[in-house]
Amino acid sequence: MRRYKLTLEYDGTEFVGWQWQTNGYSVQQALEEAVTAFCGETVRVHGAGRTDAGVHALGQTCHLDLACDAAPEKLRDAMNAHLRPHRISVLAAEIVPEDFDARRSATARIYHYRIVNRRTPLALDVNRVWQISRALDAEAMARAAGRLVGHHDFSSFRASACQAPSPMKTLESFEVARLEAEIRLTARAGSFLHRQVRAMVGSLVLVGEGRWPESEISGVLAARDRRRAGPNAPPWGLYLEAVLY
Amino acid sequence: MRRYKLTLEYDGTEFVGWQWQTNGYSVQQALEEAVTAFCGETVRVHGAGRTDAGVHALGQTCHLDLACDAAPEKLRDAMNAHLRPHRISVLAAEIVPEDFDARRSATARIYHYRIVNRRTPLALDVNRVWQISRALDAEAMARAAGRLVGHHDFSSFRASACQAPSPMKTLESFEVARLEAEIRLTARAGSFLHRQVRAMVGSLVLVGEGRWPESEISGVLAARDRRRAGPNAPPWGLYLEAVLY
Repeated sequence: MRRYKLTLEYDGTEFVGWQWQTNGYSVQQALEEAVTAFCGETVRVHGAGRTDAGVHALGQTCHLDLACDAAPEKLRDAMNAHLRPHRISVLAAEIVPEDFDARRSATARIYHYRIVNRRTPLALDVNRVWQISRALDAEAMARAAGRLVGHHDFSSFRASACQAPSPMKTLESFEVARLEAEIRLTARAGSFLHRQVRAMVGSLVLVGEGRWPESEISGVLAARDRRRAGPNAPPWGLYLEAVLY
Repeated sequence: MRRYKLTLEYDGTEFVGWQWQTNGYSVQQALEEAVTAFCGETVRVHGAGRTDAGVHALGQTCHLDLACDAAPEKLRDAMNAHLRPHRISVLAAEIVPEDFDARRSATARIYHYRIVNRRTPLALDVNRVWQISRALDAEAMARAAGRLVGHHDFSSFRASACQAPSPMKTLESFEVARLEAEIRLTARAGSFLHRQVRAMVGSLVLVGEGRWPESEISGVLAARDRRRAGPNAPPWGLYLEAVLY
């Protein structure tokens, strides 16, 4: 058996999320079916993390074990051929040591969230960004985001279904940048709680709208109570940009 | 009657192009139907230029005359409401002098063309960029593009159906920039011949692949013969970025 690491891009729109579900088609299922179509083996594909329905990936990673002795480039190209017409692309495949684990070996995850702040509807970026009509103060959002950086109990930004053993996480950076109508928020951490990025973005938007003072973010963080945070930002603006090892 | 100028964003994928066609739905038809739905008037919408099927716009412009005394913001919002679910967005509406003509009053057009140069398929940018697997030398493409800048007879880069009275055009700038896997070509001119940008991009790709020396671009230009240029780049990588007045 050889262990392979794959780097993946996908459009989350058509999927129920990363993980197998009974109510629809998942990225994991599509990948496992493509492996079987390629070499006849039934495998389990282990992702670095679960992305929700609608969430996109530019650099998700996973590992799998194969008995066939496929060259990595051949595995990559064959999977891409079998994945059509699904919007998943295997960007890279490589052989890794047998103790490599896509989730546990990762040292950091980078997510970014795209907001387009304009009144008019989206023609080109439907399902790719969160369009917000009300004017947002990106500088206030950036300052508020800075209040979340560091080692904290992120219970206020944790989905009730979250299975992480601890709500303590270290948010290494959380930057907010505006380029014309687009506001992009980029967060980096060793790992995140379930829906943490969407909960943080949803709260920062309340700051950007002027409905919350910047200091409210610190109050919400300290409260360790999910009911204090803003609503989750919708999934379609979120991108798993990279998983680092 | 009042004359209005509209600024438009659209996804060219679902349309037969800007102009009315008997074989499908055009951007022009969608706009004219939205105006009628809004105020009951039957109008002709005059675009700054025709975009082909599949070509996108970030800043197409058009003008139209209305008898109803609509405030520009109201026209914009009502048209956006009536345009759903079509992927057209009216970004701005304004009242202009009655001698304003979206096509003839324009002083410059800016197009850009997006190439993603990688071996693996696109998951997120399907119908948005031209994916090219073979490695491209973007610096050679940039130097070759520079050979096209200036006042020239562009017959070699002109579609046979082109209705322009003269093949003489002034290409004000044509820049090629690579950012990671993406190569973006940006061309600016007072006006372009039909399919000129796609023909120029198709030829520059031959240079980028190393199949043509850079000097071949000058030879093709001088030949004034469409058969000498490369194949047209596909429409889905092309964006009408802005029309200037």
